[in-house]
Amino acid sequence: MSSYADRLAALRDQLKRDRLDGFVVPLTDEHMSEYVGSYAQRLEWLTGFKGSAGSAVVLPEQAAIFTDGRYTLQVRSQVSESEWSYQSVPETSAAEWLREHAPQGARIGYDPWLHTTDWVKQAKEQLAAKGAELVAVGTNPIDRVWADRPAPSKARLMVQRDELAGQSSADKRQQMADWLSENGADAAVLAALDSIAWTFNLRGADVSHTPVALAYAIVNRDGTAELFVDPDKVGDEVKAHLGNGVRLHERTAFEGYLQGLEGKRVAVDPERSVAAIGQALDEAGAVIWRVRDPAVLPKAIKNQAEISGHRAAQARDGAAIVRFLKWVEAEAPSGKLDELIASDKLQAIRAAGGMLKDLSFDTISGSGPNGAIVHYKASAETNRAITMNSLYLVDSGGQYEDGTTDITRTLAIGEPTDEMRDRFTRVLQGHIGIATALFPKGTRGSQLDSFARRALWDAGVDYAHGTGHGVGAFLSVHEGPQRISPAGSSQSGGDEPLQAGMILSNEPGYYKTGEYGIRIENLVLVIVKQVAGAEKAMLGFETLTFAPIERRLIVKEMLSAKEIAWVDSYHRDVLAKIRPQLDSDELSWLEAACAAL
Amino acid sequence: MSSYADRLAALRDQLKRDRLDGFVVPLTDEHMSEYVGSYAQRLEWLTGFKGSAGSAVVLPEQAAIFTDGRYTLQVRSQVSESEWSYQSVPETSAAEWLREHAPQGARIGYDPWLHTTDWVKQAKEQLAAKGAELVAVGTNPIDRVWADRPAPSKARLMVQRDELAGQSSADKRQQMADWLSENGADAAVLAALDSIAWTFNLRGADVSHTPVALAYAIVNRDGTAELFVDPDKVGDEVKAHLGNGVRLHERTAFEGYLQGLEGKRVAVDPERSVAAIGQALDEAGAVIWRVRDPAVLPKAIKNQAEISGHRAAQARDGAAIVRFLKWVEAEAPSGKLDELIASDKLQAIRAAGGMLKDLSFDTISGSGPNGAIVHYKASAETNRAITMNSLYLVDSGGQYEDGTTDITRTLAIGEPTDEMRDRFTRVLQGHIGIATALFPKGTRGSQLDSFARRALWDAGVDYAHGTGHGVGAFLSVHEGPQRISPAGSSQSGGDEPLQAGMILSNEPGYYKTGEYGIRIENLVLVIVKQVAGAEKAMLGFETLTFAPIERRLIVKEMLSAKEIAWVDSYHRDVLAKIRPQLDSDELSWLEAACAAL
Repeated sequence: MSSYADRLAALRDQLKRDRLDGFVVPLTDEHMSEYVGSYAQRLEWLTGFKGSAGSAVVLPEQAAIFTDGRYTLQVRSQVSESEWSYQSVPETSAAEWLREHAPQGARIGYDPWLHTTDWVKQAKEQLAAKGAELVAVGTNPIDRVWADRPAPSKARLMVQRDELAGQSSADKRQQMADWLSENGADAAVLAALDSIAWTFNLRGADVSHTPVALAYAIVNRDGTAELFVDPDKVGDEVKAHLGNGVRLHERTAFEGYLQGLEGKRVAVDPERSVAAIGQALDEAGAVIWRVRDPAVLPKAIKNQAEISGHRAAQARDGAAIVRFLKWVEAEAPSGKLDELIASDKLQAIRAAGGMLKDLSFDTISGSGPNGAIVHYKASAETNRAITMNSLYLVDSGGQYEDGTTDITRTLAIGEPTDEMRDRFTRVLQGHIGIATALFPKGTRGSQLDSFARRALWDAGVDYAHGTGHGVGAFLSVHEGPQRISPAGSSQSGGDEPLQAGMILSNEPGYYKTGEYGIRIENLVLVIVKQVAGAEKAMLGFETLTFAPIERRLIVKEMLSAKEIAWVDSYHRDVLAKIRPQLDSDELSWLEAACAAL
Repeated sequence: MSSYADRLAALRDQLKRDRLDGFVVPLTDEHMSEYVGSYAQRLEWLTGFKGSAGSAVVLPEQAAIFTDGRYTLQVRSQVSESEWSYQSVPETSAAEWLREHAPQGARIGYDPWLHTTDWVKQAKEQLAAKGAELVAVGTNPIDRVWADRPAPSKARLMVQRDELAGQSSADKRQQMADWLSENGADAAVLAALDSIAWTFNLRGADVSHTPVALAYAIVNRDGTAELFVDPDKVGDEVKAHLGNGVRLHERTAFEGYLQGLEGKRVAVDPERSVAAIGQALDEAGAVIWRVRDPAVLPKAIKNQAEISGHRAAQARDGAAIVRFLKWVEAEAPSGKLDELIASDKLQAIRAAGGMLKDLSFDTISGSGPNGAIVHYKASAETNRAITMNSLYLVDSGGQYEDGTTDITRTLAIGEPTDEMRDRFTRVLQGHIGIATALFPKGTRGSQLDSFARRALWDAGVDYAHGTGHGVGAFLSVHEGPQRISPAGSSQSGGDEPLQAGMILSNEPGYYKTGEYGIRIENLVLVIVKQVAGAEKAMLGFETLTFAPIERRLIVKEMLSAKEIAWVDSYHRDVLAKIRPQLDSDELSWLEAACAAL
């Protein structure tokens, strides 16, 4: 395997051959996916960075990598300081850095299948200040020098049965068709993989941990659709499920199809579609209607079948977590546990039920200082023992056909310090602040975010990530459009009004670099709340995740009576939900873990 | 006096003569002021609307008036339903309404001295969808038909002494000059009246309640400046104060001066400058640097002299409020008080000290249901008696040469209902939620807003206005750029990071239409907070306003121990600050009003 220095040198040689002075390397695929197949892991191949978000810019004499607050520590440990300069977003961006550092008159390459139209427009403007040019490449220069680049996955499509999806694909497409008619449009491009999976009630396995298939789709105003997907992935059951209303095309035929849409008015989501799509439609003489992908909002607002499925999946997953917590408590004193042993065990327990399709993301199994790395992934090099008198943070989730889970628990191994207990209690207060919030219809996630931080702010501390992200129904564990995050933060979504049926995570934390990390994460469902005397339609949250919260880290005296009541009530619910799945040993353990504070 | 129907008809006739199919009527002046001189009260003249924010559009067959949540009730009581359709912002806007209602191919007029460049651009785009055109008028058609339009004020300029301003005008201009040099610019246009007043340490009296003078200014990169102001307003003291570095011009010479700036790079604030300025610079061949007016941020961040002045002004104003509250309590049972008698009395008490320069806005003196009209102004027609068993809301402020005040108190007259006490207590909890907040440096006002609403949301109620606005130092009582308001609300400023030295109001409320209104408002100063063990620079608030909070409306059992401690501590501070100014009767009253809960 070539060194990262060799790879960077090879890319620079290729850029010379392509007559380019630089190149922009995002971490996404042709669908603007957050998690991508191994064939699209160009940023990791080039730099060694294993985080889930970032980008890089290569110039002849300089190279920079751009990551956000979650990866400040990780990027320094994975990416060579001698080749790469570390840059933080949102303080800077690849485009702004290029404006500063690109040589006068430079030609900077970009792959139009890996950036949005808006990014291209903005980067062009930044470079124009330097008389420099942003140039679309025909073939990604990394692909030319990445000798052992994996082939795209050939995983078969699976049908998501209507009783789990809660609505047939034909119904979903008819709603989109009505919307197109009302708005005088002819067709909608679906480029986001989870939008396609949701619209057609299909699931795939092309991307690790996210059950989607590489595809494009176009929904027409008559309710029929074009689906562009490798035909080897489509079995008879899927064909029958799709029916006559869906015409199948090779995925590679998508660009050509767009070029045939002359004179059509086509809905394209500027955030969820790459620039190449807009360019093909422009060349065809189509009219682009910039509008949000029509699957995004109905996908986020779960229907009754999806909610029931989620409840079942969460209860099942909660039992696995309970068994795991009991196991850690029993085994840790031996001193033989480490992060990898623990995460393997957790996966085995989840799989033992026979219902697990996949993890929903790489387990974060962080002992001591590794718990302070927000999106840590244990490897042979970083693996730490789970030692006495430390904290152990485990953030994990499962993909089940009826729901996607995501839960974080932080455990005291041995004796925690007073500071650990103080910080944990403040994180818990923030978690309760979200879980118990009532708010009027129309409230945005950004308006709730500070409820999760107030107790931490009181002690002069904070956490450098959002408080909650949307979660899919056997789909992406990070699903838009809603989010609980500060207004103006780097991650969009905080400005989306919350609606009943949306599922979000509730995950405040605290991280002490080099010492320990704390996070308490449950999923919550937005529900309508009846409030006596209310003058407005009110919403609130129902917690969906059931597993005990580490009582040995709670300073009861810091909690208000209402906060104590919430913890006790939550633990009663945990016991009630999980009890039927446990044997008597497990039940005894859980009863103790869930006793009143 | 002509009727409003006659005025609208006269404007329509004038539009016909001007070959226009419509006209847009904002409520501002040639400086994008929030409060304007009587000569610029075109919206009120045309429609009868007396609120402080709004706009109107007139078409041949239709006319619409646009107001925000604060004026929903007021606009219906002041503006005729038969001529005008009521429209709510931000749900719609004048430009969006025009896109819906303007006739195909229409010519819609606008006054380029009363709109920003961005507004013009956006409105043009909206109208283009209808093939309609937005046309700049040379003379405002309202001015042609407004027979008895007041002449602009001739009030003289006054010097704001350096010991009150805390920094000389020459220093302020030198800082702007350094900033221009660093950014390769030649000059900065100052169009906002309070920016000019602050920069030159001058005050005026051209606008009711805001001590500013109608003027324009240009600061040059050598630290000299051009000041465009009616020379009749400039006495010898002002001339000596300005010195040789400031060249005086007629205000009417401003446009011509801009037209001479060929080839210069000129800083222009797109939010605080009208389109006519940009158009003059464009025609001149100047390069416009769109950037925030360089006075805005230093004006918002008060220096030590301004903070000391504010403290003195608030204590003085607090004593006036205490005398007023005592008087209301004593007189209300007679049944002879009404809103106008009370607001006149309050003004007289404030003026009795001999230090009052002006009120800082029209007093809101609202009895019973009038208290629910957020920006109510009592008039002979609306004047209500202050009756037993009701609430009385009074929101008022004074302009003193050392500071600007703004305070709201809500009083129980006779016996309040349980609901009134419940709602008042929740508003108080919100007020305390802001007053006691600690937050990291960099936090925006929008991140704090929900702290003021949580206790109200818990009961299913809310208030339809922001929580806090900036306040000037003997300048505008509504001063940008900071604000405590929900992200995405109609009023900008919530996204501005709070900085030590900024002053804001803290004014949650609750309004029951047709019954009563509640608001508790103090001014707060952003200060650095030392927090033991803090990992971040932390900020918090120091309350500047001192007057008792109506104890008969507080349900002590609803408050937490911390909230009770805040009220008691605040009342101890009120007593300590105000005591030296009171006679023994007044002091006895205040001691009772400030006793521990």
